[in-house]
Amino acid sequence: MDVGIVGLGLIGGSLGLSLRHAFQQVSDGQRLAELPGRTDRHRVLGVGRREEVCRAAVALGATDEASTEMSLLSSADIVFVCTPLAVIVSIVEQLAQYLSSEAVITDVGSVKQSVVAAVSPMWSNFVGGHPMAGTADSGLEAAQLGLFAGRPYVLTPIATTPPRAVALVSAVVNLLESRLYQCSPEDHDRAVAWISHLPVFVSAGLISACLGETDRQIVRLAASIASSGFRDTSRVGGGNPELGLMMATYNRDALLRSLYAYRQECDRLIVALEQEDWRTIATTLQQTHQARPTFVADP
Amino acid sequence: MDVGIVGLGLIGGSLGLSLRHAFQQVSDGQRLAELPGRTDRHRVLGVGRREEVCRAAVALGATDEASTEMSLLSSADIVFVCTPLAVIVSIVEQLAQYLSSEAVITDVGSVKQSVVAAVSPMWSNFVGGHPMAGTADSGLEAAQLGLFAGRPYVLTPIATTPPRAVALVSAVVNLLESRLYQCSPEDHDRAVAWISHLPVFVSAGLISACLGETDRQIVRLAASIASSGFRDTSRVGGGNPELGLMMATYNRDALLRSLYAYRQECDRLIVALEQEDWRTIATTLQQTHQARPTFVADP
Repeated sequence: MDVGIVGLGLIGGSLGLSLRHAFQQVSDGQRLAELPGRTDRHRVLGVGRREEVCRAAVALGATDEASTEMSLLSSADIVFVCTPLAVIVSIVEQLAQYLSSEAVITDVGSVKQSVVAAVSPMWSNFVGGHPMAGTADSGLEAAQLGLFAGRPYVLTPIATTPPRAVALVSAVVNLLESRLYQCSPEDHDRAVAWISHLPVFVSAGLISACLGETDRQIVRLAASIASSGFRDTSRVGGGNPELGLMMATYNRDALLRSLYAYRQECDRLIVALEQEDWRTIATTLQQTHQARPTFVADP
Repeated sequence: MDVGIVGLGLIGGSLGLSLRHAFQQVSDGQRLAELPGRTDRHRVLGVGRREEVCRAAVALGATDEASTEMSLLSSADIVFVCTPLAVIVSIVEQLAQYLSSEAVITDVGSVKQSVVAAVSPMWSNFVGGHPMAGTADSGLEAAQLGLFAGRPYVLTPIATTPPRAVALVSAVVNLLESRLYQCSPEDHDRAVAWISHLPVFVSAGLISACLGETDRQIVRLAASIASSGFRDTSRVGGGNPELGLMMATYNRDALLRSLYAYRQECDRLIVALEQEDWRTIATTLQQTHQARPTFVADP
């Protein structure tokens, strides 16, 4: 089987490293036999924008071959589009000129409704995907073998998506040892608005509010004594600004919906504080304390 | 010198472990010589509410001696009150019956205005203090040697605080290898409202808003795919409810002030999203990205 990767950054590079590792594992013989294409040879073919990144991808072992030319992927059974959201549609347009019509295209964009709506009419064997993994760093240098292991990987097929295409993407994702989920693009976008995009804006608002303190002595002191609580709560709000802007642009409606509910929650807490309604504060903090482990576990 | 500790929980226990370790270090000979009381013998004396905790404190090496009786501390040159905020005043009242008038009392409460205002008239040699260290766990079992090393430790003397008392607390805190800061109780409370108490309510609001999503399928999906972004942003809001309630009760005014500013910030982001004002979103996210390292560094 030939797996194509377009975009050799953190996600594309990690995908390549992890798939090539899986292909080399004897213990994966069983799973590999189920994959389409040549069963005696599995390759990862990468397409990057710059020659030096392509060379680095091969040197790092993230791809078997790499090129700046999309034609490299003409033999691909499946292609992962690992570019920023804004260029996915134009990448699929280019891919369509080279791929066999049997080939499956999937993406790794963190918002799904707009991508799936735009790409599905262009390529019937398209399956929207979203691996929920990342690091604070970006670029091929940050790529990690095993980045997706144990992490959620959401596929968002729609009514017209061929089951065979979903099965193929699922089989390849299983090689990454991700936890696979399937849902509609709409449900995906609402869920990530809650647990991924809302946190970014909640967290950015925290930093921004602190910066608005006009007494510079207080700001200096606050900065000197800020500790793990501030570090954790501010992390995603102080992250990559392009990512945050992308979430806002592509998932605006679901994000706004979550932000409205969040503002209401802030108002409720503010009113409780104003009225010294300690019972409401206590009940809320007990509920959040109890509910958090149903969302996440601390390491 | 005899150091007393009232309250043998996480902070009191860690303080005892760290001070006894420092007392045993030959390399600290110089610093120890500057301390008051007997220079040939340094002891940590603990007072706990329960016999078994007192026994455990001695067994763990957190104190040389421990008792449920406050009279154990009659020889103390300095006493650290490491109890919850609500009982600090009554502990100082009890201590006043046993301590020499030269003895210095300090506390470790995370809010300072109310404590300093209440205790200073009762004991002139009182210095408000706040070690900015902790763990997710509580109780003596969670106590750690070195918990305060490299962490901020804020002292909040007022105009009437004897310089000698501040010097003594500073000298003992230096044994912990903390980063020592001094400011007014008011400035302390405003600063911690920004970097410690506001984050708790921002973070609790996030969890609470997610729980308000009425589509249970979305909540289940969100919980399944929640990742490091949600984990970090929700951590302090899902923490110990008593601590959060204590912040709200004792630092209500400064917290409300920060929450008002924060709500304004949320409103500004919501309006920008509604108006698709991507420039404002981008500028804000760039500012928060640039500003965060001035507050905290990731490990």
